[in-house]
Amino acid sequence: MTMNSKPALETALNHRSIRKFTQQPIEAEVLQQVLTAGQMASTSSFLQSVSVIRVTDMEKRRRLREICAGNVPNGHHYVENCAEFLVFCMDSARHHHYAPEAQTDWIEVLLTGAVDTALFAQNVLLTAESLGLGGVYIGGIRNDIQAVSELLAIPPHVVPVVGMCLGYPDHHPNQRPRLPLSAILSENTYQLADGETLAAYNQTVHEYYQTRKLDLTWQQQIQSSLYAELRPELLAYLQKQGFAKR
Amino acid sequence: MTMNSKPALETALNHRSIRKFTQQPIEAEVLQQVLTAGQMASTSSFLQSVSVIRVTDMEKRRRLREICAGNVPNGHHYVENCAEFLVFCMDSARHHHYAPEAQTDWIEVLLTGAVDTALFAQNVLLTAESLGLGGVYIGGIRNDIQAVSELLAIPPHVVPVVGMCLGYPDHHPNQRPRLPLSAILSENTYQLADGETLAAYNQTVHEYYQTRKLDLTWQQQIQSSLYAELRPELLAYLQKQGFAKR
Repeated sequence: MTMNSKPALETALNHRSIRKFTQQPIEAEVLQQVLTAGQMASTSSFLQSVSVIRVTDMEKRRRLREICAGNVPNGHHYVENCAEFLVFCMDSARHHHYAPEAQTDWIEVLLTGAVDTALFAQNVLLTAESLGLGGVYIGGIRNDIQAVSELLAIPPHVVPVVGMCLGYPDHHPNQRPRLPLSAILSENTYQLADGETLAAYNQTVHEYYQTRKLDLTWQQQIQSSLYAELRPELLAYLQKQGFAKR
Repeated sequence: MTMNSKPALETALNHRSIRKFTQQPIEAEVLQQVLTAGQMASTSSFLQSVSVIRVTDMEKRRRLREICAGNVPNGHHYVENCAEFLVFCMDSARHHHYAPEAQTDWIEVLLTGAVDTALFAQNVLLTAESLGLGGVYIGGIRNDIQAVSELLAIPPHVVPVVGMCLGYPDHHPNQRPRLPLSAILSENTYQLADGETLAAYNQTVHEYYQTRKLDLTWQQQIQSSLYAELRPELLAYLQKQGFAKR
């Protein structure tokens, strides 16, 4: 098959998370190519600290959907309905296999492992989008990371960081407006965006959500995300897996 | 100006880290486009937890090069010689500005912040590469993250995660062979690659390094990266900045 990959810049600028998919499966060669693109991403100290689990077992998909949905009874249908569900793991098990005295419990290893996992995953998503696929990251696998780990037989030194739904898009949502570039970019020294810029952006987000019949500002979104306990079992889990101890 | 962005898949599959650059500056519009591409990457709970500092002050560049080089007197020349040096930061300062009671000290926030920073950065690098630029990630800014933070006036709730050199390439290094896809991909349950596959890969890496006149295996590289203290001051720094306390 020939693969018609769209320009990277156009693809990135047109990104939207896709949560409704057609029934069309992803061709094996396409999946292989985007995963290979993931592998070609940079990797800190050439450690290649990433593994991917492809979940094809529909009973596991159903259970993953339940975990990701949390308190929303029929939430996260796309975890079951997408063509492919991938779990991207930070992985030091290969390092321990080869170098049993590897010290991977420093928080530095957690940080580079998370970064490398994300670089890999973003190459997968962007190249998939360039080939006409769509997808969405699923942080909800960390809602009950212990249960996910048992479901996928995750051994010590491996952590499922983020999931991803992939498939052929069956909707075309509007893009959410980002902060103005000036609000996140500074030169030589860090500058917090001024209050006026952030207030104007807050209003922009409010207007965007009104088009979706929601009465929501960016401020409210931050509050609803960060004013609660945030996956409080995660640190104990990471330490059990051998990470983030010092 | 018109921008000729190469296909995303081709760009990702052709990635190599670039450490030698021509004197050609990066056009302002190109820089703006690749940073905008970074902003369009997915962001957990729409928190947009990323800021970028562009370092144009050559005295700061010189000092950053020293920090990144560590014990190698003239190492990391590319931090000074690249057209643009960018520092990608995980940033919850905007959240605290807008939602003073935000609880960003959970390790969950560190993990999503690191992931979001990497998704952003990888969009920047891949789109830059698609436009004919090259670059390399610089983890060395964490060699002395406190000194880097003072140099760039990093406030609480912000952490410089990774640097990036960008510019027009002045070399075309060989690609380092990755693990076979079968060694990092499993279906439904995690599988550690078998010893035979890893041993064969170890030999492949050895042969690759021999073409660079180095006598090095993947195993030796893991040992040299993970058998030492790994930035042991990082946890205390993260906690001082308000992250990773629980």
